[in-house]
Amino acid sequence: MAYELHYWPCIQGRGEFVRLALEEAGADYRDITREDGIDDMMAGLDAPPRPAFAPPYLRDGDLVVGQTAAILHYLGPRLGLVGESEADRIWTHQIQLTIADAVAEAHDSHHPIASSLTYADQTREAARRSADFRDERIPKFLGWLERVLAANPFGPRHLVGNRLSYADLSLFQLVEGLAYAFPQATERALAATPKVVALHRLVAARPRIAAYLASDRRLAFSEDGIFRRYPELDG
Amino acid sequence: MAYELHYWPCIQGRGEFVRLALEEAGADYRDITREDGIDDMMAGLDAPPRPAFAPPYLRDGDLVVGQTAAILHYLGPRLGLVGESEADRIWTHQIQLTIADAVAEAHDSHHPIASSLTYADQTREAARRSADFRDERIPKFLGWLERVLAANPFGPRHLVGNRLSYADLSLFQLVEGLAYAFPQATERALAATPKVVALHRLVAARPRIAAYLASDRRLAFSEDGIFRRYPELDG
Repeated sequence: MAYELHYWPCIQGRGEFVRLALEEAGADYRDITREDGIDDMMAGLDAPPRPAFAPPYLRDGDLVVGQTAAILHYLGPRLGLVGESEADRIWTHQIQLTIADAVAEAHDSHHPIASSLTYADQTREAARRSADFRDERIPKFLGWLERVLAANPFGPRHLVGNRLSYADLSLFQLVEGLAYAFPQATERALAATPKVVALHRLVAARPRIAAYLASDRRLAFSEDGIFRRYPELDG
Repeated sequence: MAYELHYWPCIQGRGEFVRLALEEAGADYRDITREDGIDDMMAGLDAPPRPAFAPPYLRDGDLVVGQTAAILHYLGPRLGLVGESEADRIWTHQIQLTIADAVAEAHDSHHPIASSLTYADQTREAARRSADFRDERIPKFLGWLERVLAANPFGPRHLVGNRLSYADLSLFQLVEGLAYAFPQATERALAATPKVVALHRLVAARPRIAAYLASDRRLAFSEDGIFRRYPELDG
């Protein structure tokens, strides 16, 4: 049976980390809201016995899994996108959770006060938060990923071991998002992280990923998503 | 060999979610920095081959696991604090990740601009963010936990199945922290979530947890931690 991904239909958002894994694996999946609208997703959100707090969530037969990192932890072994050992799996998951923290901070760079308000309602606070995100946090997160690559005993080609994992795909998406939202700050940070740049390129060149990125299944970044380009926040 | 917990020595913080699991299980563990200071923790943070991004991290022999939720996912089966099935384990983890999101938001209620700045540097922004956290987010998170309890086919005594899990312990700690930081707002929210209140009480009454809370191993909440009481932010 096909996996069902339930996520907002018009943005990449957190759902994109799941889409990339499904696409790389050539998995049979349905992106439910893009086919049928959001009614099913909204109804499923609060459905017993295991209501998800927020999209995205994945339905696999009777099982429903929410939280992006948990979805990838669940899919990893099924899609061949994580190592076999418990040590490799928990390390891959730890990297994913750290990327998830970076994504949450990228969101809060333009929404530091409340998700329920618009950007226009919090531009002054966003300018302050973005200055810190841009100057401190982007280099810190990318610098950590660089150190993870440098420390990999199998070499810096992948984050974990000698194979592609969902964490590599997520690094790609994090770099894509940061480069969209903060092009100048991200370019500066990437100048110090050549191994991150190389892995981003390697993922982009994977045949299924390249085909996906060129397809209409890949949504564009926009100012409705998590990574938003407000030029006044970059610099 | 004893588990080694590495976390800041003077605050509950995120480390407390791990401490509660170790204490409930009566596990053999060492709280390294409280015994020996932070040098080992800081050195271990950036140690190859698998450097953690931030404390807490757990050392179990040769394995190092960072990210609070990943630590609990790793410890759960070893401490008997999660169900046997993959479905129960991923659901417990999903709940933990949602609690982690609430904890991150609790932190940002007093530090909405930058962790590297003091509260005094961001009081105006903290007032705005806290108003939203207090009025919208606390009720939303506690309301979701209430629905999870109500939807549990085994009854509302526990979050998952008919047994105590690390997610129950984390619910306890979330409620403790919110009640410390936002006593008025949390009391209002808890009035609508009686099952959450009952589970909080059940955990507090567990013999090992009660002994731990009464011991000097339990640090006090303070304005150095994640949950901070600034009366001007409550209301």
